[in-house]
Formats: sequence, structure tokens, C-alpha cells
Amino acid sequence: MSEQANPTGATYEAAGVSIDAGETAVAQIKAEVRSTFRPEVLGDIGGFGGLFALGSKYRDPVLVSTTDGVGTKAMVATAANRFDTIGLDLVAMCVDDLVCQGAEPLFFLDYISIGKLDPDHVTRLVAGVADGCRQAGCALIGGEMAEHPGAMAPGEFDLVGFAVGVVERTDIIDGSRVTPGDALIGIASPGLRSNGYSLARHVLFDIAGRSLDDPAWDEAGAPTVADELLRPSVIYAPAIMALIAEVAVHSIAHITGGGIGGNLNRVLSATTDAVVDRSSWEAPRIFDEIQRLGSITDDEMAKVFNLGIGMIVAVPGDDAQRCVEVLAAVGHRSTVVGHVAEGSGLVQLQ
Amino acid sequence: MSEQANPTGATYEAAGVSIDAGETAVAQIKAEVRSTFRPEVLGDIGGFGGLFALGSKYRDPVLVSTTDGVGTKAMVATAANRFDTIGLDLVAMCVDDLVCQGAEPLFFLDYISIGKLDPDHVTRLVAGVADGCRQAGCALIGGEMAEHPGAMAPGEFDLVGFAVGVVERTDIIDGSRVTPGDALIGIASPGLRSNGYSLARHVLFDIAGRSLDDPAWDEAGAPTVADELLRPSVIYAPAIMALIAEVAVHSIAHITGGGIGGNLNRVLSATTDAVVDRSSWEAPRIFDEIQRLGSITDDEMAKVFNLGIGMIVAVPGDDAQRCVEVLAAVGHRSTVVGHVAEGSGLVQLQ
Repeated sequence: MSEQANPTGATYEAAGVSIDAGETAVAQIKAEVRSTFRPEVLGDIGGFGGLFALGSKYRDPVLVSTTDGVGTKAMVATAANRFDTIGLDLVAMCVDDLVCQGAEPLFFLDYISIGKLDPDHVTRLVAGVADGCRQAGCALIGGEMAEHPGAMAPGEFDLVGFAVGVVERTDIIDGSRVTPGDALIGIASPGLRSNGYSLARHVLFDIAGRSLDDPAWDEAGAPTVADELLRPSVIYAPAIMALIAEVAVHSIAHITGGGIGGNLNRVLSATTDAVVDRSSWEAPRIFDEIQRLGSITDDEMAKVFNLGIGMIVAVPGDDAQRCVEVLAAVGHRSTVVGHVAEGSGLVQLQ
Repeated sequence: MSEQANPTGATYEAAGVSIDAGETAVAQIKAEVRSTFRPEVLGDIGGFGGLFALGSKYRDPVLVSTTDGVGTKAMVATAANRFDTIGLDLVAMCVDDLVCQGAEPLFFLDYISIGKLDPDHVTRLVAGVADGCRQAGCALIGGEMAEHPGAMAPGEFDLVGFAVGVVERTDIIDGSRVTPGDALIGIASPGLRSNGYSLARHVLFDIAGRSLDDPAWDEAGAPTVADELLRPSVIYAPAIMALIAEVAVHSIAHITGGGIGGNLNRVLSATTDAVVDRSSWEAPRIFDEIQRLGSITDDEMAKVFNLGIGMIVAVPGDDAQRCVEVLAAVGHRSTVVGHVAEGSGLVQLQ
């Protein structure tokens, strides 16, 4: 509606907020949202809050909750006009933090702020979130769409997620069981997940002058820069749940901002060090390209990126092989990337 | 760190992400965050997820969760360089949605995205969130700070909140008990809360050419535009909890975007209408000013703003006086604003 169409005075529409577009978007996403529901979800979309019946099956339930965003990966999605998988990245960032404490993901809420509410953009964003929720086995029971005219350009958006899980108090995994001799198993990540995008964009676009449609590296059949930067995050949560059921997992670290050094240290006991052998796996090609084009030091790379390892779990040394097998059975490539030694809570990246 | 200081290659710092500033901010907010903790909070700041021991005192617990932001009220805070109370607005938006279903707020998580991470700005934002959490009686057990260089200007920020509460399944309030003859009690809101800011800013700044330091209306001793637009939201949750304990509350509506018509309709039964008498209360002066300066219709005003009523509860007609008294005892001004009649789930604003 233009201002001229309403000569009687100022309106929310004229101020840039389109209530109709919001209602259209809500109508379009309903089926996607419902597809994530579990039996515990009460009510339907549209209440003041999302309802989840925890029930009485837990003896001493501890709720574990996380929040995260997708960082400036959202800017790449906007530039590439691809909105269908970034919601999946959002779910990965949240639920894979949550399982680090041994909790089963139960439900998820999303928040989308956007410069101009285009119902089709929002529908694709939420479809990605719903896809992630189905993969993670958690219900999408709430969300908010906020149109921020003036604060953001029309195509710009930000995505924020919030996940809640549950674990029996006696089953919380917190690193206190980590013991010298434990094996460190790294689970493969094929890309950047949602971390390090400010540096990746700086190097690829500002320093190297690449565009989204350029090949990501100089080789026939190479994926485009957009393909690599928008590669959907693996969601590890179901695999971690499967692993916990089979193996005595001592510690779990989700490798996000801060890299291996900045995350594995959060789940060590005070008298152990993690010794990680950098040569035990090969980083996906995109990391080498970013490092080369930006002349980035090994140290800086290791602090900013996951370098191809999305999760690290500590298990008794004797269970290392079994751990790799269980993860393979649920579709994940993993390898021994190091071990736990006596120490003082440090990560030694060698 | 400038790029010159690191001649060996690109860094996260050079790309605009300041890890040190993030660490400084985290250190500064720790005391504020801990001040919100309840006995159920396990662990401390820094784990992968926030832990809250629900325990075994609930027979059939239902978790209620909400997410919301502060909209473009954040832009006003940036322009006025006042960051200390907007976090309180955030908590209000989330926990006051949650209590509409009869749930007690348990814990809260916040997400701050910011163009340039200034530790002092962030500390003031989180102090406001912590203040709100203390008022609401919920623990601040998690959060995320995301620096978005390029996507946002240095002083710009967005705040997103997530709240989780719990209610016994048999105590859920959902409007099904609403009965013709119920009284509708409106609880006073002294200002805009966090809704309608795109329209308010459009009218006050673009149409009327006001600045933040101007008096909000033409009267000696009038508050400034900034004072009115940044007036902290009342947090109703504790009062609603007190009310539920004393009176048979049939329905609760948090008056946010959509106004009375767009929120009270969410908690009616299908065979009742809400009849609201617009003349039964006086809107705070700021709403009149915005309407006058923008030549806004009554209809549009009622759809966008709370008009001075932040919550409406439906109680048996005979309990109306008792309801007003209970609310007064916990510090809230309220009044009968209408009644429930036979109907079809509509709100009649008269």
C-alpha cells in the first residue's frame, strides 16, 4: 500500500511494516512447521507460547538450552539469493551445542529479522529450519518474524535459534570423566558450518576479488564459491545420541568459533590436556584456498575455522574403534585425531 | 589490531571481528548474569548449553517457551546512546507472553547482534536483561554475542530473547474457560512497550521532524521524546502469577503487535466475544501525540499500539473487584475495560 492510497494519515504499512505479508508468510509456513511436531507438542501455531509436555518419564530432568545465530553466512545467502538451507545451519549450531552435555533435543524456536518481509523468502528460510528440526528430531514450536525497515536493507535478514533439550541429571556429560588415555575422535565436517564467515568473506571477496559464481578453486568441475560458502552444516545430534547409547562417551565438543583449541578446552577436566594431531586428517579444500588467498597463519586458521572437524568426542582408548564404527553406521566419517594426556586443561594442537 | 600490525596475512580482527572485545564483554557481564541465578541453575557461564534442573516436583510438567525481539526500539536506543533498559524490554516481551498460558518463567537466554562489539555497550545491554530477569524471577542461563561487521553499522544492534516456563498440564490457561459474563480487566502500561516503533519513529521523526531531545509534547516539564520512546516496559509476569494464585483467571492476553484486537482474540473460546469499552480508560499522552502528529485513524492506532493497556485478563464477573485489588497489592493499576458476551471469538472494540 502506498501512502497515497491512504490519504487519511500515517499507517504501519506506510512506515514499512507489512502486516499482510506477515500473515501470508505465517500461512505458508504452517505445513512445514507442523511436519516437525512430536507427540509432546500441545496446541497449534498461534498461541502466545509453544507448549511441550515433558511428561513424567524423567526421574530428575535437567533442561539444557542453547542459542545461536548463523553469523554473516546470512549475508552470503542474501547475495546468492539462496534461502533454503541456512535454516538448517541454524538448527545445527544450536542442537549440536546442546548434545555436548548429553541432552536429547526436544524443541526449537526461531527468530527472523528481515529488512522487507517477502513471504517467499521467509517461507524458504523456515522450510530450512523445519528440515533441520526433522533431522535433529526436535519440534519447531515457536518463532517470531520481525520486519525492521530502516535498520536492514530489503534483502537482508538475520536468523537466531533457540533449542531446548533434556538429560537425566546423572547422565550429564561435562568433561569431568575425561581421563588420560582417552581417545579423541573427530567427526568430519565438509565445510565451514556457520563460523568464520567474516574472515572468509574478507579473504574471498575483498582480498581475492572472487565472486559467488566463480569456481572455488582452479580445477575442472570445482564447486562455485557460493556452493562452498552455503554448504549446509551437518547436524550431528542424532549421531551423538546413537553414540552415547553405545559407548561410554566422556566428553563432547562442538567445534565452532574459536576452533578446536577454543572449544575442546571447555570439556576437559582440570588435570588433563587434549593432544590433537593436526596431520591425522585432511581439511577440505576450501580451507586451504582461504588460507592461501589470505596468507593466513596456521594459528589463525585453527582459531577461526573447524578445519573439517565438526565435533570431537573423548572416549576410553579401547572404545575408539567401536566409536568410529557406530558413527559410520549412522552415516558419519570419523577418525582418531588425538588423545588425552595428563595436564592442566589445555589443548595442544600439534 | 590493524592490518599493518599483522603483515603475515589476513586475520579475524582485520575482517572486523574482535575476539578480545568479546572476551572483555563476557568478563564484564558475569556478575550481572550470576545475580539472576536460581537454585535450579547448574554449572556456570561458559558451557555449551545452559543447565536448569527442573526436578521432580511437577506431576505432569508442560514447558512453555517464547521468543521475541525489541523491534526497532533498538534503533531509538542506539540514537539516544541509552543501552541500560532495552534489555528489560526484551525480557518483558518474552516472559509476559509465557505467563499468558499460566506458566511460571524459569529461565531466559539472550542473543545480541551488533555491528561493532563495544564491551561497554554490551555490558549495559546485558545488565538490562539481567535486571528484567531478576524482576521476572527467571535465571539468565545462556546467551550469544555476534559481531556482524558489514551487515550492521558500528552502533547498531539487535536483541532477541527466549524464555522457558513451566505449568502443570491441568493448570494451562488457554481461553477454553472463558464464559459470557466474565469481566475483562486491563492492566496499565505507561508507554509503548516494544511495539509500533516503526510507525512511532516514522511519525515523530519523518513526519513531525522531532528530535530525541525535544519535549514529547508542548507542556512545561514534559518528558523528552527519548524518555517516552525508551520508557521501560512493565514486566507483568510476577503480578500474573500472584493473580492466578488468588483468582480463577480464565484467560490472559499480552497486548503487543496487533493491539487489543489482535491479541485478545487469541484467548477467547469460539462461542464468546470480548466487548471492550474504549472509553473505560485513558491512554497515556504519548499515544495521543503520535496519533495527532501522524493523523492516524483510531482503527490504525488500535491495531498497532497497546494504547495504555499492557495485559488483559478475563475473570468471573464476581471476581472483578478482587482481581483489581490483588493487582494493586503487587503494584499495578488496573480497571475493568469490558466484558465477555456470547459470540464467535471476535473482539468488539467500542
